[in-house]
Amino acid sequence: MGSSLEQTLTDAVLARIEGQADERFRQIMTSLIRHLHAFVRETELTEAEWFAGIQFLTATGQKCDDKRQEYILLSDTLGVSMLVDAINHRKPGGATETTVLGPFYVAGSKQLPMWADIAEGLPGMPAYVHGRVLDVDGKPIEGAELDVWQNDSEGFYDVQRPGASYARGKFTTDAQGRFGFRTTKPVSYPIPTDGPVGKMLLGMGRHPYRPAHVHTKVSAPGYEPIITHLFVKGDKYLESDAVFGVKDSLVVEFRDLPAGRTPDGQSSERPFSEAVYDFRLVREGRG
Amino acid sequence: MGSSLEQTLTDAVLARIEGQADERFRQIMTSLIRHLHAFVRETELTEAEWFAGIQFLTATGQKCDDKRQEYILLSDTLGVSMLVDAINHRKPGGATETTVLGPFYVAGSKQLPMWADIAEGLPGMPAYVHGRVLDVDGKPIEGAELDVWQNDSEGFYDVQRPGASYARGKFTTDAQGRFGFRTTKPVSYPIPTDGPVGKMLLGMGRHPYRPAHVHTKVSAPGYEPIITHLFVKGDKYLESDAVFGVKDSLVVEFRDLPAGRTPDGQSSERPFSEAVYDFRLVREGRG
Repeated sequence: MGSSLEQTLTDAVLARIEGQADERFRQIMTSLIRHLHAFVRETELTEAEWFAGIQFLTATGQKCDDKRQEYILLSDTLGVSMLVDAINHRKPGGATETTVLGPFYVAGSKQLPMWADIAEGLPGMPAYVHGRVLDVDGKPIEGAELDVWQNDSEGFYDVQRPGASYARGKFTTDAQGRFGFRTTKPVSYPIPTDGPVGKMLLGMGRHPYRPAHVHTKVSAPGYEPIITHLFVKGDKYLESDAVFGVKDSLVVEFRDLPAGRTPDGQSSERPFSEAVYDFRLVREGRG
Repeated sequence: MGSSLEQTLTDAVLARIEGQADERFRQIMTSLIRHLHAFVRETELTEAEWFAGIQFLTATGQKCDDKRQEYILLSDTLGVSMLVDAINHRKPGGATETTVLGPFYVAGSKQLPMWADIAEGLPGMPAYVHGRVLDVDGKPIEGAELDVWQNDSEGFYDVQRPGASYARGKFTTDAQGRFGFRTTKPVSYPIPTDGPVGKMLLGMGRHPYRPAHVHTKVSAPGYEPIITHLFVKGDKYLESDAVFGVKDSLVVEFRDLPAGRTPDGQSSERPFSEAVYDFRLVREGRG
């Protein structure tokens, strides 16, 4: 009798939601229930494994707070975030590719003038990041907004250090579509491993590292906003990003240069790095 | 380019765990990743829906504490718990069927003598539940332990009321395999709806009710323990249990009787209910 229930249960669960109101919710739950049940059948999950799963999901939720989103980390490390990104950003050729938002975005960064230093006072190699925001035909977009954030030279985002706030800012393009800012050269770093997701990665024999990158959200009136990274060319984790976020078109050379004249027209007494990148946006409704 | 990643990402994620140590963990994670990705592709999940999912999973974890297990409730309401139960208890014919543990089990209930009242002082219809614990050939098992728990006549388990402790106990069978206890007749009740799972049920157009039942864990040395319910025959939710736990063989008549002689050899001044059930256990290693 147990084995008969084993066969009929999925249909019994699906039958219970047939009449419900919202068509899209029904569609999502139907697919979810089918796949969840198929997973349990395929693996013949033991009761101990099921309970380990319950404990993992509970602990993952309880690790979340206003500064830490362990479920986004889980989605990222299982490739789910990049899959959702790919499905939702099937852009025409020529547009800048997108990648994961990640768990460290904070809304409401301050507006800064061109060439402001978002990493003021932080140690590490100074870096100048500049370029243009263009449409897919190569025409400059004036007044586009770049919201940027990154880690410090020890690999930490500000929100990972109690009370800290650094390496974030918003910039606006000029009439030629140009933007520019100063920062420190980002470094590769491990995603947080002190929670359930870290244990899972360890159990899968995977390292937790992400290649060095600067996060950017780029938006302009009339264009589809993009969320992406600029990855540092040559980083040793480009081929094995813990969250599967790397795309070739987003890998940018950060040229290490000797002390001297800097891209902002000033000069530096220390060696510095320079990265140049043009973002390309698609008009709304063309995606 | 996005669509190419869309096609290759699942293999890229699976490739990352190929070399890892524990074969069973790799097997489970491989199946999980395949089904998760298939779910996202099939539904073409939007970013807003993905984020609603992240928020739901987070809130479900955060609703859990030492008295409340919202993830077990989620597993129960999606039919996952009953599927795991069915797969893990493919018993030979004649053994008592199993059903969900549910979120209200508490280990360490007190040992009570035959015919003790686990619901002392609670309002509701008095009930006498008795029977035998047998092997599959019908031979009585002496010294079998019954761990029982149930709700009160308002539909609440003790752990749902701050500081309360009632309607739980452990009983041991005598030389004839007999057990018996007094309680109140259990009532149908809604599973907790003040959390994320309640909202999900509402969204699916489902009611949250479970048909009235007494929980039992039955164990004896040398036999496979079982976790099951005795459901009250005639309950209006038997066909639509919110957690899919009902099996025909577990539906038991609770006969309502007038005041008078009671099954424990005493008498009652009030009408009472009587339920008789024989549990059957399988020898270890025969399952």
